[in-house]
Amino acid sequence: MLAFIALLAAPPYSPDVAARLVGGALTDGVTYARVAELSDGIGPRLSGSPAAEAAVKWALQRFRDDGLDVHAEPVKVPHWVRGEERAEVLPARGRAGHPLAVTALGGSPATPAGGATADVVEVRSIAELQALGEKARGKLVFFNHSMSTAGGKTGYGEASPLRNRGPAEAAKLGAAGALVRSLATASLRDPHTGATTFEDGAPKVPAAAVAVEDAELLHRLLERGPVRVRLGLGCRTLPDADSANVVADVRGREKPDEVVLLGAHLDSWDLGQGAVDDAAGVAVVMEAARLIAQLPQRPRRTVRAVLFMNEENGLAGGKAYAQAHAAEAERHVAALESDAGAGRPLSVGLRAGEGAQALLAPWLQPLETLGAADFGGEAGGADIGPLAAFRVPFVGVQQDVSRYFDYHHSAADTLDKVRPGDLAQTAAAVAWVAYALAEMPQALPRPAAPAGRPAGGRP
Amino acid sequence: MLAFIALLAAPPYSPDVAARLVGGALTDGVTYARVAELSDGIGPRLSGSPAAEAAVKWALQRFRDDGLDVHAEPVKVPHWVRGEERAEVLPARGRAGHPLAVTALGGSPATPAGGATADVVEVRSIAELQALGEKARGKLVFFNHSMSTAGGKTGYGEASPLRNRGPAEAAKLGAAGALVRSLATASLRDPHTGATTFEDGAPKVPAAAVAVEDAELLHRLLERGPVRVRLGLGCRTLPDADSANVVADVRGREKPDEVVLLGAHLDSWDLGQGAVDDAAGVAVVMEAARLIAQLPQRPRRTVRAVLFMNEENGLAGGKAYAQAHAAEAERHVAALESDAGAGRPLSVGLRAGEGAQALLAPWLQPLETLGAADFGGEAGGADIGPLAAFRVPFVGVQQDVSRYFDYHHSAADTLDKVRPGDLAQTAAAVAWVAYALAEMPQALPRPAAPAGRPAGGRP
Repeated sequence: MLAFIALLAAPPYSPDVAARLVGGALTDGVTYARVAELSDGIGPRLSGSPAAEAAVKWALQRFRDDGLDVHAEPVKVPHWVRGEERAEVLPARGRAGHPLAVTALGGSPATPAGGATADVVEVRSIAELQALGEKARGKLVFFNHSMSTAGGKTGYGEASPLRNRGPAEAAKLGAAGALVRSLATASLRDPHTGATTFEDGAPKVPAAAVAVEDAELLHRLLERGPVRVRLGLGCRTLPDADSANVVADVRGREKPDEVVLLGAHLDSWDLGQGAVDDAAGVAVVMEAARLIAQLPQRPRRTVRAVLFMNEENGLAGGKAYAQAHAAEAERHVAALESDAGAGRPLSVGLRAGEGAQALLAPWLQPLETLGAADFGGEAGGADIGPLAAFRVPFVGVQQDVSRYFDYHHSAADTLDKVRPGDLAQTAAAVAWVAYALAEMPQALPRPAAPAGRPAGGRP
Repeated sequence: MLAFIALLAAPPYSPDVAARLVGGALTDGVTYARVAELSDGIGPRLSGSPAAEAAVKWALQRFRDDGLDVHAEPVKVPHWVRGEERAEVLPARGRAGHPLAVTALGGSPATPAGGATADVVEVRSIAELQALGEKARGKLVFFNHSMSTAGGKTGYGEASPLRNRGPAEAAKLGAAGALVRSLATASLRDPHTGATTFEDGAPKVPAAAVAVEDAELLHRLLERGPVRVRLGLGCRTLPDADSANVVADVRGREKPDEVVLLGAHLDSWDLGQGAVDDAAGVAVVMEAARLIAQLPQRPRRTVRAVLFMNEENGLAGGKAYAQAHAAEAERHVAALESDAGAGRPLSVGLRAGEGAQALLAPWLQPLETLGAADFGGEAGGADIGPLAAFRVPFVGVQQDVSRYFDYHHSAADTLDKVRPGDLAQTAAAVAWVAYALAEMPQALPRPAAPAGRPAGGRP
């Protein structure tokens, strides 16, 4: 009976606007078409590449086509390029050698000419590595983990420090290099890349991801005796390149200085097409802004689409945006990042002050039929992370990520992995949530205190 | 009540022998250990390679260890070697170029230096290709199909002629080359190789498999306009090499001249470890023969394990065996080939004369608990195919192949895909069926007439 009464009570929003936004996303085909433009038309877009610059130009043009106020904001980005890459287990007494499916981690230096050849030592955590101490010197440190067998939870959060920080820690101990088991929930011998980080001036070592199968092989062989591997990586870091964030506004009708930021990232890894990560998010954000711009009446506040550059290997775009917009950061009433693939929407996440949920809840009714009106999951994002320092409330449309890490950062991140209907539902949810945040009379309360550390994302 | 009576009736076999064979396979760990020896110890074993010869030596030694009468029988095998391989969609007006994940098909010639560059034309059948006629001249013929979306049925049988015969048909029309969508039920951008066949003296063209994702890309791009691809293959065919089948007997106690043949193939494709295809089958056959040899009393007839060479790209081993043993082929009372991966047993297949099923049925009771005692599925095998001409009855232990074509002929055919418990059940079933065939008083009736064409397998 309560539910029935709730339905009869006048909603705080215009049902017509809800129908236009959700219906538009689910029927116009634009979201998927734009993922295809980025994936098939432009291809992979690693920071500093010509394709990344083509993506910037494309985004400027498309936002103009959509009637938004758009401009590029300059960002200096790291310019890392992949070269030839190969690795092999050398033959040993009583067994053959084996090729290893590897791919360099972003930020890795090259191996010496002829490759780095060394015995392998296996660890399952950075603590285990540190306990090795001198025994890691001159070795190839193999970071193993069990992400792919973690079941319902992906395990990415637990395993990703091995890739992000493991090689740097190995370098400090004088290792010859690092091999990191791919962060993947499925594998057909395809390695998954990703960034690894070395502090300025600290020692570096060549670092590569190995496919899950090859991690299993190394583990089996190490159970039987010493394993010697030759790793050859031709990657290198060129001087920083000029690039840009693309910022497009739908100016608010009453409070144009108050901003609801919708973010996604234009750059991608180089192995696949960057369709799932993050052409999908880019297209969702563009579609939300486009549909809102087409409404008969714009919302009270400004909806701003920001397509960040360099999310994958440096976060230069996210940092540059927060720096350039520090003066108006207090007037950012919410930030939402779309960087979790092309799955359907499941719930709405919040990271805001007390009372935010109660304030937003009545506005989520139009997402009930899509099954996305409940609160749950973590709101955040790598690019919007720096805005946490300004107490900007984070809102997230949580998506089905059950297949996300099957493809993430691998050659298999291609357009065929995007189901248009699932993606359109997420575009509908983001469009509606963005509209709600821009239209509700009172903005969300801000989080109590700046977080010590930016909220989690998936760099 | 009938079932209860059936249980009480004395079985035609010794329950103790059944328990020893099934229990041995399920507890001794030997089957999986031997898959590991072949996969991790020797690695991929393409005909003509040093690893293939190492596998022959290994098999001879292991059969000797097991106390069998073993010898090698010489076979001349094709010696095809893979070289560098790459392909790319060239950039076109309004879109970027794209790398393609490709791998040469076994038997393909190399491309000219600098690659074969041509426009792509898509067909979905050989009939469609032939309808193109002159329009195929100078083109790269792209054979597309829908195997990966065929659902419950794998679709391998329908799609494999495109790989086997498509390139030869394209060559006859003056094509520049052939690209064949991988025959795969799952894909993470990994191409699946396999043999393609050109008749002696007929024209040849370079032929490669493309990953499922890249087939989808070609299809999408072709919907929008012309697509030009550069294909570079460095593969080549060397002079035929000397190799061998390995033949090991457990001589029968009463009718040693009557032979129950258990076959599998020692060679494998070169991309993965050949763990599923066919180290699993090799280990199953070895385990069945080994357990039977250890029985207190051997069965009436001879159980013969034959590890064939060159199943994958020529069938030289299967042909050589049938030729060398033509004189005793009439005394081959049954042949069973184990070449369907490492899945658990599901049923028993038959290809024999009338009354065979009734004769064998009472002997299958010990497989009931494993769920493998019913009749069903096709019995056959590529290596034993030539024995069909001699009316040898074929018997098969049908396995769960639901994941088989996820890995088949790809780099992902690695040891981690083998579940020891599933494989052990299949070894148990093969051991018991082989024993039954060798022990039953009356041999299976032979098929009525020689088949016009060898029974199906999976070359």
